[in-house]
Amino acid sequence: MSGGPERRDVPSADEPIAIVCGGGSLPLAVADAATKRGRRVVMLAVRGFADPQVERFRCHWIGLGQLGRVFKLLRAEACRDIVFIGGMLRPALGTLRLDWTAVRALPRVVRAFRGGDDHLLVSIARLFEDAGFRLVGAHEVAPDLLLPEGALGTHTPNERDRADIEHGLALLSALGPFDVGQAVVVAGRHVIAVEAAEGTDRMLERVAALRRDGRIRSEFGRGVLVKAPKPKQDQRFDLPSIGPPTIAGLAKAGLAGLAATAGATFVAEPTELLRAAEAAGVFVIGTPSHGAAP
Amino acid sequence: MSGGPERRDVPSADEPIAIVCGGGSLPLAVADAATKRGRRVVMLAVRGFADPQVERFRCHWIGLGQLGRVFKLLRAEACRDIVFIGGMLRPALGTLRLDWTAVRALPRVVRAFRGGDDHLLVSIARLFEDAGFRLVGAHEVAPDLLLPEGALGTHTPNERDRADIEHGLALLSALGPFDVGQAVVVAGRHVIAVEAAEGTDRMLERVAALRRDGRIRSEFGRGVLVKAPKPKQDQRFDLPSIGPPTIAGLAKAGLAGLAATAGATFVAEPTELLRAAEAAGVFVIGTPSHGAAP
Repeated sequence: MSGGPERRDVPSADEPIAIVCGGGSLPLAVADAATKRGRRVVMLAVRGFADPQVERFRCHWIGLGQLGRVFKLLRAEACRDIVFIGGMLRPALGTLRLDWTAVRALPRVVRAFRGGDDHLLVSIARLFEDAGFRLVGAHEVAPDLLLPEGALGTHTPNERDRADIEHGLALLSALGPFDVGQAVVVAGRHVIAVEAAEGTDRMLERVAALRRDGRIRSEFGRGVLVKAPKPKQDQRFDLPSIGPPTIAGLAKAGLAGLAATAGATFVAEPTELLRAAEAAGVFVIGTPSHGAAP
Repeated sequence: MSGGPERRDVPSADEPIAIVCGGGSLPLAVADAATKRGRRVVMLAVRGFADPQVERFRCHWIGLGQLGRVFKLLRAEACRDIVFIGGMLRPALGTLRLDWTAVRALPRVVRAFRGGDDHLLVSIARLFEDAGFRLVGAHEVAPDLLLPEGALGTHTPNERDRADIEHGLALLSALGPFDVGQAVVVAGRHVIAVEAAEGTDRMLERVAALRRDGRIRSEFGRGVLVKAPKPKQDQRFDLPSIGPPTIAGLAKAGLAGLAATAGATFVAEPTELLRAAEAAGVFVIGTPSHGAAP
């Protein structure tokens, strides 16, 4: 494909960056971080997913499947760099309203739909790159939002929690080749829940329900949520993220804390998250990215 | 420990067999099958789990943790062979009322509680064996209840379903070392759900909910439930089982069918299951036990 802005090797920080906004508070956090670093941002808010607050910034609403419109907006705004960020539930193909550009791209996207998430995202990235745009990871634009290594607050994992973290990391690593979820819950080295299409919040709700029904052997306050990026994941998409709702979910599920990969996990609202974790008495720890227990 | 019946190398078919009954219809099916083969059965029905219908057979109700009482009943009934069968939710240690024999065995059981299910069951088996009893697999007493190889009814998996089955089997095999669940749902080679502590029925309910919320990309009527025993599982315990409720769950979840390991999966009510599968238009297939797709 052609017609995109001319390719340059070094992106200019003078150019605005386009942020394609899915759900949650992460798009806002990324936009704030980019703005703080002196970069102008243009929000492309996905209808049905993006938080209306993204209109705090320069903003256009877009529909999923409006690929031609997105390309046009990007050119009109002189954006070459694009960030994809925020939750976007997997859409059923039948519900998409495609414009002509999207229709022409359809065979590629359909092929990608048949694979796992990774294939889908990589294929969408290529569509943009072929049109002359550059996909940038939110972690490059807003590195301050990444979870640091070590414990965030005053609560820390004890020896049993560390054993559970290690078990969870090993399990996630075994799941790597299958493009499954990015999180598990382990208590007393017993795997309580494995995340797939439902997402972390729903998995934690399930753990809370299992706890209520007496189907978890370990006591309340035991067990950990372990999150890690998929081993071969393109980090420009879909890095794991945690936020205050994750802490609320942990507390309801009666877990001791959460471990996630340092440098590869977004913290949507760090101050709020820390406040919530301290109040709930749960630990939040960044594990080294080589996958060993902290 | 001593005091059990004297050990003999060849169990006599004249002796009654004790069936420790958890929930579901499988204990009844095993008792019927054993009776048909001319073996007398004594049901030890676990209170809170066993179906009251087990009283059709000679029956004693027992509480979890009443190990001494169970040993006494077994001796009084002159049972040497014991089968454990049927669903038993993982009990919270605190809810158990232990008799003295159980209290003495507690340190061993507690150690086992810290491991996964496999450890727990193996440790319980040893307690019985040390007391002079013999744990027999339900599949040895009632081999007719095992799923045969190939399609059960008129519906068969198509090529896409077979690819999903293969993907699911590979995933279950990767999960093997972690003593997790025994089932996954795969649709379009995308892993929708992984079973852990919640069990198959609840996992299928989750898939139905994800489908309702538009969070599953593949169409209604696509995707498979794949079940397999854990690779190193002691087959005397906890072989996977399927029954009419599994078919109902499949249908609600909008799946095409289920694949489970031939010769290592119980079918609780084969006639009812087949009728339900035909009515729902889903396939039920026994996969070869070496783990390849059918």
